[in-house]
Amino acid sequence: MFPTDPISNLATLIRCPSVTPAEGGALAALERMLSPLGFKVDRVVAKEAGTADIENLYARLGTQGPHLMFAGHTDVVPVGDEAAWTHGPFSAEIADGEMYGRGAVDMKGGIACFVAAVARHIEKHGPPEGSISFLITGDEEGPAINGTVKLLEWAAAQGERWDASLVGEPTNPDKLGDMIKIGRRGSLSGRITVHGVQGHAAYPHLADNPVRGVVQLVQALMYPPFDEGTENFQPSNLEVTTIDVGNAAVNVIPAKASAAFNIRFNDSWTAEKLMAEIVSRLDKAARDDRLRPGRAPVSYEIAWNERPSHVFLTRNDALIDSLSGAVESVTGRRPKLSTTGGTSDARFIKDFCPVVEFGLVGQTMHMVDERVAIADLETLTTIYESFIARWFGHAVA
Amino acid sequence: MFPTDPISNLATLIRCPSVTPAEGGALAALERMLSPLGFKVDRVVAKEAGTADIENLYARLGTQGPHLMFAGHTDVVPVGDEAAWTHGPFSAEIADGEMYGRGAVDMKGGIACFVAAVARHIEKHGPPEGSISFLITGDEEGPAINGTVKLLEWAAAQGERWDASLVGEPTNPDKLGDMIKIGRRGSLSGRITVHGVQGHAAYPHLADNPVRGVVQLVQALMYPPFDEGTENFQPSNLEVTTIDVGNAAVNVIPAKASAAFNIRFNDSWTAEKLMAEIVSRLDKAARDDRLRPGRAPVSYEIAWNERPSHVFLTRNDALIDSLSGAVESVTGRRPKLSTTGGTSDARFIKDFCPVVEFGLVGQTMHMVDERVAIADLETLTTIYESFIARWFGHAVA
Ligand SMILES: [Zn+2]
Ligand SMILES: [Zn+2]
Repeated sequence: MFPTDPISNLATLIRCPSVTPAEGGALAALERMLSPLGFKVDRVVAKEAGTADIENLYARLGTQGPHLMFAGHTDVVPVGDEAAWTHGPFSAEIADGEMYGRGAVDMKGGIACFVAAVARHIEKHGPPEGSISFLITGDEEGPAINGTVKLLEWAAAQGERWDASLVGEPTNPDKLGDMIKIGRRGSLSGRITVHGVQGHAAYPHLADNPVRGVVQLVQALMYPPFDEGTENFQPSNLEVTTIDVGNAAVNVIPAKASAAFNIRFNDSWTAEKLMAEIVSRLDKAARDDRLRPGRAPVSYEIAWNERPSHVFLTRNDALIDSLSGAVESVTGRRPKLSTTGGTSDARFIKDFCPVVEFGLVGQTMHMVDERVAIADLETLTTIYESFIARWFGHAVA
Repeated sequence: MFPTDPISNLATLIRCPSVTPAEGGALAALERMLSPLGFKVDRVVAKEAGTADIENLYARLGTQGPHLMFAGHTDVVPVGDEAAWTHGPFSAEIADGEMYGRGAVDMKGGIACFVAAVARHIEKHGPPEGSISFLITGDEEGPAINGTVKLLEWAAAQGERWDASLVGEPTNPDKLGDMIKIGRRGSLSGRITVHGVQGHAAYPHLADNPVRGVVQLVQALMYPPFDEGTENFQPSNLEVTTIDVGNAAVNVIPAKASAAFNIRFNDSWTAEKLMAEIVSRLDKAARDDRLRPGRAPVSYEIAWNERPSHVFLTRNDALIDSLSGAVESVTGRRPKLSTTGGTSDARFIKDFCPVVEFGLVGQTMHMVDERVAIADLETLTTIYESFIARWFGHAVA
């Protein structure tokens, strides 16, 4: 039987307790949906020392181009306070027109709908002239080390090439049809440590208070703004997310202070240019002596978090117009083309092919009582089906 | 036998392990020195719920005015790394002309010398025309709750009144004769807590980062300076001694940040005026929106540490000239009249009579291998003896 019903598909997936790093039966269930449609399914286990082994799935229907990839994840975040759920987090119970369950919108729901859309397309028209593949990881909500990155590398090593990708993450803030994501800001984090000289608060000249230094430095990170935003992106924004000294003795000047920061940056920067700008701000602030009159420059070091997320913007008209047209034809509303929000696995896919993102409404994601409107599942399936037809139409034409 | 030898007096006191709150036999030893000189000795135990009971000592020779009080403490700070001491911290061993031991300079040495000076004065001239008393606490290095404050109140309740006081703390930075303290800065501490709204670093507009707020506030405390100093005092100085957030997740905007500060202030302020100034700076900084554009004022609260230390300056010529003259006549150097450094119990005594401070060289106080030059003990005894003669001469004249 073809998996044309997104509600049934989603119930099956929700009932698999696939909290990262557990597969929980979710990829096996997906394999059982895709095989009858003619997909060749590979289950790819990724391993890395010090991390849990992760199961991933790659499935392809067709052998020719053009090649459309749907990407996503079956792993889910922990349920939180299970007792607080109105219906069990792995129950897939329906109440008042909504299906409850962890992953309902992020993003087993998106997968369930895309599977149904492909099944309906095949049922009506046969397999598309070209290829469709599913690139589904079990490590998006966790460390993401054994997930999309390794799966892409594995597939590329098998000779897989794609012309476009759709990620099924929940992109709509309020209502289905609100927003397509056509890019994402980059993300870069670091930690500053300021070294001072310990001493007594009554003899500050014999000490060097690192709190003065750290305040000087983090202020230079917070002000002035890094940019005013660009055509497609919000202004870059830096948040200092912690400052720590841990000195319990109010009369003692401490020896050390540290601070950590995260910056979400737009396409006026690369991660490398931004790191240089940050170091330049810090070096300048270290020499400023307003808070430390007559002192040598602040002695500090900076440690960058591994693997910054690079900024990207997709400019592929065939892909964006197919998706945007599908959304508008089904919902009657023209979706906003946005680059807001956090990072997603699209940042890895963009190195292989143009990528956009569209899925359900994200309001309940990661929360207790995560749930999806049954009507939205049907609507999203119709949008995805229309998108498939349009994209292959475009691409083939 | 009269306790005219400061070296012997000090060895006796050092051998009493009187680490706060332990009496360690030190006050008993002092009583055995003072009784033969004619002092009436009271051992006063101070108690307060939640703190250790503390033994203190008050001893008076004479019944008439003028009345000179010598004040100090027999308790000592812990020995630290005992294995690192060249000679045992309670051994009073002499090597290369120095006596080793915890309290050698802070301030069993000062007590040993003043006892010897009084003994020599009596031996030569008989008891002074007036009264001398010792006000000695066992709780100066600890919480100081059951120490000088309660002992002063106890004595005052007995009808004791003083015309002047000398505190025997180590006041000389390098060499005996460097410095008399004629006042002390005040000290005031507080803790600021800034309340924000937790959130994700990718969605800062949905959160309110308290790190921005706390940086704004502490900066207003650090700059501009509170004053330029006064005739007798250094500029007031504020140190922010800790900032703490404790947020381990670099992508998460925290809910709360706190900071603590200590200010050493001069006689252009009272503690009350200074608290008002600090609150006014904080309120102004809370409304500054440079680091928090378009936001409501920073939501913060401030908690003041109990019992600020008030600033004081002694302007009693008879007392200062007697001491200064004694130092100069013995050492050939005119001591600096200073108000620098931390607080001392003189800040409590100043409410009862004019008070000055002079003792040994402080270099090794609170350190491993605390020690005093034997020659300094003899010199300080001579200075104290000269001071006693001069002060009673002045006061009687
Ligand atoms: Zn997701
Ligand atoms: Zn002391």
